[in-house]
Amino acid sequence: MTDMKTGTLYGVGLGPGDPDLMTLRAHRLITSARVIAYPALAGGESFARAIAADAIAPGTREIVMDIPMTTAREPAQTAYDKGARDIADVLATGQDVVCLCEGDPFFYGSFMYLFARLADHYSVKVVPGVTSITACAAAAGMPLAARNERVTVLPGPLPEGELRTRIEGAESVAIMKVGRHLGKIRTVIEGLGLLGHATYIERASLPQQVVCPLADAPENAPYFSMILLTKGADPWL
Amino acid sequence: MTDMKTGTLYGVGLGPGDPDLMTLRAHRLITSARVIAYPALAGGESFARAIAADAIAPGTREIVMDIPMTTAREPAQTAYDKGARDIADVLATGQDVVCLCEGDPFFYGSFMYLFARLADHYSVKVVPGVTSITACAAAAGMPLAARNERVTVLPGPLPEGELRTRIEGAESVAIMKVGRHLGKIRTVIEGLGLLGHATYIERASLPQQVVCPLADAPENAPYFSMILLTKGADPWL
Repeated sequence: MTDMKTGTLYGVGLGPGDPDLMTLRAHRLITSARVIAYPALAGGESFARAIAADAIAPGTREIVMDIPMTTAREPAQTAYDKGARDIADVLATGQDVVCLCEGDPFFYGSFMYLFARLADHYSVKVVPGVTSITACAAAAGMPLAARNERVTVLPGPLPEGELRTRIEGAESVAIMKVGRHLGKIRTVIEGLGLLGHATYIERASLPQQVVCPLADAPENAPYFSMILLTKGADPWL
Repeated sequence: MTDMKTGTLYGVGLGPGDPDLMTLRAHRLITSARVIAYPALAGGESFARAIAADAIAPGTREIVMDIPMTTAREPAQTAYDKGARDIADVLATGQDVVCLCEGDPFFYGSFMYLFARLADHYSVKVVPGVTSITACAAAAGMPLAARNERVTVLPGPLPEGELRTRIEGAESVAIMKVGRHLGKIRTVIEGLGLLGHATYIERASLPQQVVCPLADAPENAPYFSMILLTKGADPWL
């Protein structure tokens, strides 16, 4: 009797949304996958699957992780526990699983929850992807940083006071997950006299992409929106 | 007589070093390019060209920008002025130029200097790439951030006092351009009692990649090295 070799779990970053911004490795792993896994929001669509759609071969087995629409800890834990079990069942048979991740798996990605549950027991490899931050910078034509400049990444849901302190002490700032926090964030940036330095970007790299000054941003921002603020990267002219 | 259409300058991110981490778009733009441009350090090698090498078609014209090895402003300005002129000469004939950029063009990339010189006069498009930060996180198996966690990116050459203040107030920290600043940075992190949370990564994604606890890092770090410090991203177990 021989030990059966277990499979490898690949956490594959898909980039910001345009399938053309997948890496060569991500594309190859997906096209050759026998089993893929991905999160979907509460029985709804999966943005990750949509990005990868054209690369998924017919007959590929799909493990869908239903993630509840809540910021509460326990329902999400339960969902990732189940997802990890489903994936582990496949890995135990010796087959690999390719987990589809929007952006980059370790940069505000839910893959870290699977990684935490499975990396001690199985081979887990992460394929980095293009993050929404540099995709937004490219879309907006805004260099983020050069030389000894600092970059701060802040999630929009942070409390107003903390956002103010963090933005005040920063150079280039990327504010992620803007969504329904847009009004609060705009108030903070305006209060700091920085409104003229801030750009709003929605669905970077997708056909519906929006780029405009923050002053002109819509009242209702989708989850996939970002604000970039550079106090003036010096282009060494 | 008709107006001749000018060409487009593409600033193409190549990712952290492994050619397999190029995006599909970057790869296609390079393989079909008639003219490419890239920086080389003072007559030496070009890391950008090395990443793209296998995708460059025979007969492609190459514009090499010799960047002086100095942090002084003027010699660098002169080099980018000349590079921008050489590129503009090609764009003016109606031909596109694909500029090869390590990592991402707008994230500590020298492309911003060309962008500043040419974007007002020519069509310039930026293709974002995988940054060294998420490549290092993938190599180290270190999730960088989830939910409402903040990420701070600091260049290693910053003064010791500023590094200390910034690291102290941060959650996840990526310190770029470590190189000869390794000793100083290690002293700061050790002084803050965070040495056990810090990982050293050298040449992420390349065959010579090194990943180790910062405590065990070599005395002499190459320019392409990074320190990742997470005060404990919470994996929601």
